[in-house]
Amino acid sequence: MATIHDLPTPSLILDAALLEQNLAAMAKALPGERLRPHVKAHKCSELARRQRDAGHANFCCATVREMEVMAEAGLGEDLLLANEVLDTRRLAALDARVTVAIDSDETLDAAVSGGVREVLVDVNVGLPRCGCSPEDAGRLADRARKQGLEVRGVMGYEGHIVGIADRAERERRCAESMELLKRAHADVGGDVISAGGTGTYDCNPIATEIQAGSYALMDTAYRELGHPFVQAVWLWLTVISVSDAYAVADGGLKSLGMDHGNPTTEAGKVWFCSDEHLTFAPEPKLAVGDRIRVIPAHIDPTLAYHERVYVVEGEEVVDEWPIDMRGW
Amino acid sequence: MATIHDLPTPSLILDAALLEQNLAAMAKALPGERLRPHVKAHKCSELARRQRDAGHANFCCATVREMEVMAEAGLGEDLLLANEVLDTRRLAALDARVTVAIDSDETLDAAVSGGVREVLVDVNVGLPRCGCSPEDAGRLADRARKQGLEVRGVMGYEGHIVGIADRAERERRCAESMELLKRAHADVGGDVISAGGTGTYDCNPIATEIQAGSYALMDTAYRELGHPFVQAVWLWLTVISVSDAYAVADGGLKSLGMDHGNPTTEAGKVWFCSDEHLTFAPEPKLAVGDRIRVIPAHIDPTLAYHERVYVVEGEEVVDEWPIDMRGW
Repeated sequence: MATIHDLPTPSLILDAALLEQNLAAMAKALPGERLRPHVKAHKCSELARRQRDAGHANFCCATVREMEVMAEAGLGEDLLLANEVLDTRRLAALDARVTVAIDSDETLDAAVSGGVREVLVDVNVGLPRCGCSPEDAGRLADRARKQGLEVRGVMGYEGHIVGIADRAERERRCAESMELLKRAHADVGGDVISAGGTGTYDCNPIATEIQAGSYALMDTAYRELGHPFVQAVWLWLTVISVSDAYAVADGGLKSLGMDHGNPTTEAGKVWFCSDEHLTFAPEPKLAVGDRIRVIPAHIDPTLAYHERVYVVEGEEVVDEWPIDMRGW
Repeated sequence: MATIHDLPTPSLILDAALLEQNLAAMAKALPGERLRPHVKAHKCSELARRQRDAGHANFCCATVREMEVMAEAGLGEDLLLANEVLDTRRLAALDARVTVAIDSDETLDAAVSGGVREVLVDVNVGLPRCGCSPEDAGRLADRARKQGLEVRGVMGYEGHIVGIADRAERERRCAESMELLKRAHADVGGDVISAGGTGTYDCNPIATEIQAGSYALMDTAYRELGHPFVQAVWLWLTVISVSDAYAVADGGLKSLGMDHGNPTTEAGKVWFCSDEHLTFAPEPKLAVGDRIRVIPAHIDPTLAYHERVYVVEGEEVVDEWPIDMRGW
């Protein structure tokens, strides 16, 4: 039976028990359709299948590729492309219920020309990214309906506040953002108010569904928020070189999302990453051939580097899931 | 005929003329075996083929996967795995001349057990990464020869100084590092002294061959060094949302290596990247559907995110090369 000691390195390792713990905690807090898991956080249809098994049949995607793979995996009951897209040519062919976010006349027209039938009006609630101004949402909805689209409601991502550590402040700012979304929804209509993320999953007063993704595998940044989710994925490396002051392991910039900075490891203090190396000061000393667990600073762009994740129960390797939604 | 305006986004675009310019400039400075191109910089066997066409038949790799793909592509005349590796099981099967770096008894033993026949002794010349101490190099070489290995010489990467902007200082520090390598070589013997990178390609006084990779596509960081190489790859994005102060394009953390910070764009000032978004202040204003060129801050980990690069002559798409050495 294979154990983690038999695996090639660098490898991503997913602890099945910790994943189940995260999925169960979220399914309890936001059962069924109250959660629309965002697959961009993991890009893995097998993991999405576990989220569906936990009761959530509706999903968020960030790319057309993610939509395609989810549909092919039989997980297309209700797929929301929670992103603006102009190249809609591949959406009409999907064997899935497809809803697309729109925030402009151009993205509305692209939805129509791509044969999309359902949309959400994406509203800017404070994050400088996509989303129309709240005042423009009603006009867009009217125009969409005139063009034959079903407008299911609104979405708005309060991404600028999901990381605020102070809970009271996070709640206050979230309520402010959601007030904007509520007003837009009054103009737009529809059943859906889609918003939120792992940072605000339990304090969004307005949303009918929460678009959380990171909760399943977790991020070091979200650890500070006091949520019941734990880091379930790590990078598994082999020490390939040792000197007096430091050791070198066999994974680096091409196996780690680096926008949140260096990874961390219980094995010592990280000095720096190179393309395929991690230089760190081991504590205690290590030998060539020892293996270490490295915690990526940002999970989403880390998984996007890997072809697969190995699933373990304790040290036993029980499965191997392709990260099959990579690319575009 | 397809042009860049027909391509899906996000896409990586490679300017064929600029690539040729870089390859020609390097082949003139370091013809034939004086250069051992490092394929980790691009992970693309089609690009490696152009480097061979420019006269360089010997290559460097950083991973076993890179060795495998290069051998399969018929580019295995002389492949150096310029990295320490303990899992050598896949190396014996390669249809290629295989040389592996060793810096310890353990990596030496791994080479023997993997059926490797030729090695270089990797010497630490100042960068805190792999490499034995210069004093230990002769002992390792003796031990390797006793175990039946052919010791071709030494390698040592002065990666801690390749980015020093002041040329005189760079030369001085490089000479210091190479003095260490020269002394180790005196103990080790063999024909090969392999060292250097794009930053020091023209000021290494000792190396018989230079392990440069970045010169082919170039990096923003290396632009400051006054070398004759130009940035030949960019990320091609579509503007998907526009507001008064900023615009949003459809590529971000999952299409860009971020360890050197944010990318840059002639289209305006970059604010921040999200997983699949780039928020920037366009100058002049842009409309939804406009496309922009984005220059990655670090090329190597950028290419590792992409399945392919589109090759263009002007705006015409003339080819599509798989980034086929990704993964491990």
